[in-house]
Amino acid sequence: MDTELLRRLATPNDTKIVLCVVDGLGGLPDPRTHRSELETANLPHLDLLAGNSVCGLTIPVDYGVTPGSGPGHMALFGYDPLQHEVGRGVLEALGIDFDLQRSDVAARGNFCTLDAQGKITDRRAGRIPTTLTIELCERLRQIKLPGVELIVEPVREHRFVLVMRGEGLDGSLSQTDPEREGVEPLPVRATSPHAEATADLAHQFVMQARKLLSDQPQANGLLLRGFAKHPDLPSMPEVAQMRAGAFAVYPMYRGLAKLAGMTASAGGGTQESQLDALKSHWNDFDFFFYHFKRADAAGEDGDFHAKVLALEEFDKLVPQLEDLGADVLMIAGDHSTPSQMAGHSWHPVPFLLNSKLGTTDDVDQFHEAACRRGSLGVFPARHVLSLAMAHAGRLMKFGA
Amino acid sequence: MDTELLRRLATPNDTKIVLCVVDGLGGLPDPRTHRSELETANLPHLDLLAGNSVCGLTIPVDYGVTPGSGPGHMALFGYDPLQHEVGRGVLEALGIDFDLQRSDVAARGNFCTLDAQGKITDRRAGRIPTTLTIELCERLRQIKLPGVELIVEPVREHRFVLVMRGEGLDGSLSQTDPEREGVEPLPVRATSPHAEATADLAHQFVMQARKLLSDQPQANGLLLRGFAKHPDLPSMPEVAQMRAGAFAVYPMYRGLAKLAGMTASAGGGTQESQLDALKSHWNDFDFFFYHFKRADAAGEDGDFHAKVLALEEFDKLVPQLEDLGADVLMIAGDHSTPSQMAGHSWHPVPFLLNSKLGTTDDVDQFHEAACRRGSLGVFPARHVLSLAMAHAGRLMKFGA
Repeated sequence: MDTELLRRLATPNDTKIVLCVVDGLGGLPDPRTHRSELETANLPHLDLLAGNSVCGLTIPVDYGVTPGSGPGHMALFGYDPLQHEVGRGVLEALGIDFDLQRSDVAARGNFCTLDAQGKITDRRAGRIPTTLTIELCERLRQIKLPGVELIVEPVREHRFVLVMRGEGLDGSLSQTDPEREGVEPLPVRATSPHAEATADLAHQFVMQARKLLSDQPQANGLLLRGFAKHPDLPSMPEVAQMRAGAFAVYPMYRGLAKLAGMTASAGGGTQESQLDALKSHWNDFDFFFYHFKRADAAGEDGDFHAKVLALEEFDKLVPQLEDLGADVLMIAGDHSTPSQMAGHSWHPVPFLLNSKLGTTDDVDQFHEAACRRGSLGVFPARHVLSLAMAHAGRLMKFGA
Repeated sequence: MDTELLRRLATPNDTKIVLCVVDGLGGLPDPRTHRSELETANLPHLDLLAGNSVCGLTIPVDYGVTPGSGPGHMALFGYDPLQHEVGRGVLEALGIDFDLQRSDVAARGNFCTLDAQGKITDRRAGRIPTTLTIELCERLRQIKLPGVELIVEPVREHRFVLVMRGEGLDGSLSQTDPEREGVEPLPVRATSPHAEATADLAHQFVMQARKLLSDQPQANGLLLRGFAKHPDLPSMPEVAQMRAGAFAVYPMYRGLAKLAGMTASAGGGTQESQLDALKSHWNDFDFFFYHFKRADAAGEDGDFHAKVLALEEFDKLVPQLEDLGADVLMIAGDHSTPSQMAGHSWHPVPFLLNSKLGTTDDVDQFHEAACRRGSLGVFPARHVLSLAMAHAGRLMKFGA
């Protein structure tokens, strides 16, 4: 359902909807056992819940498309991820809990090493310690340019974020990182005519930074990539007429929820403390996004066993999620992260929706092959929000 | 995935992708046995391959849409067949191995019989022998018009192809065939303002042809239909960054592949010689389109048993296809051709994709009902290319 139709049909009521995103949920079979991580794990609570729910598989973006975390979550929040792209610079800023504003343009920065001819000898400046990056970012904050506020924030090792804040900025800029060594950094270029002024400001920043870094043995240059403006999405709480709260340990996921217009809880650094925060805010929101990270991390590490354990850890939280008594409880993934691939993948992701209004569905296990037989079939993840709202009685009839 | 996204995500590597199109693959159950042609046939190799693959059903164009060979293949080559139509005149030209150029406008021609008042008495001129059509086409080649080259090629019996070659031609022309007898041929009319000049040229051709044919007892007139310009598709090899080769016995399928930018092999006139050609070009291409015709021909004849035999004949080729060692091997159909209907149909078509990165899928037979339970679900055929590229590691991640 597109935003305009959702806006037209959405109607508020007293129901509660909980969306649990198990990051990197789906996987692939172990070649020896022919069983996926979900099929291998012991998931008594999820299996029981699947038996009382309608199941299916979600396609995060499109057939064959491997999503990053941005599009994977945006789809579950009801956006068409191909229409609403979240740039790399924006994600990097969200990842350090930076409070990005609607007119900001953000970029990922790397300190790098340049030789006497200005050519790159190390794109990561020998992975200088974070402490030095903090010091160098402090130094770069001296740079002042007319009509724009420049914010430089350290990330980790050689990485930082540059945010340009001001009116009329445009993120359509090419990266200065040539993605190889032995050549000079590229100039910043506007990739749209509206971005000429912003390109000029970014260029001036780079020139002044080079001077300020010239005494550094390793970090005497910098590379910028992923220039992107805040995506300025339609607000999900406004469109769907639901107060929406996000409960996630990692800043990037809180940040993605904030882009969608949700309120992010501080909530602390563990899955349990975030779940406690969710419970304590039960009266404050209608829609709750709860993010569980460890399955993705284990999959990214290529560690099948660790992913199995992460899924079993999530399973133990399920009774608490059920005890919330939500009208609609969903278990979803932003994408698959098969241990076998040690990375994200395009494979459709198991999904369940528990509510009083589910149809019959003979799925009583929660894994890829079982969910495929579910009543929801294989469907685009961007329909999850409208499906949930329908099951919560939050969508009016279309037409007479 | 649309062309622009595919262009953005495609990345080359050393993998090989084989797409086997079994023309008219899908069918309907025999009313007596309740088993389709695929369910009736003995297909040991396909069943075994299905057991090691992910399966599904493809929708060639849209729900309820029966595709011709053009849209059925275009979808499998990654194009939205509703966006990229291949006109009848173009298909007729491809069918005789005519080397259509990007600016050409082609039309199907029929010789017909006209009475003294110029009214059609036989739309097919008594199906005159091909030898006479060859002679009459030779005669029509005398026609010269300013600024355009006219090419007239015989097809079979009363049928020929007219190709207009020149700059600025437009195929938006109405047909001269009224599709009934007892009336005069219709004038050529431009159906778009840009086609006025082309309409005028086509009209002059018709007038001069009438004079040149006036001594003929049967073939004293002609009818033109299906005017169409070369569809000028984005090149699949360029967009997908794959060298692509086509191996098909029949000229129309080589022609469709050439429209998509593939290189068509000569390869000879049997399925075996085309398969040998494919093997001998293994190092020349990344993507291989192999076409198997006989299943469609048997279905079109309404011969259930012949279609079963054709499928069994294809099954015998499967071990050779597997022995190629492709990273991705797909068995697909351009559309269903149920013997019961003696023609193409809209029914979703069995599909399998074999690769190391397939998910679990408990389908171990290759037929309509089994493939419906497959992990790919029921999906549009135009996603086949991006799915294959994903399984071959040829698509980059979307978003961060």
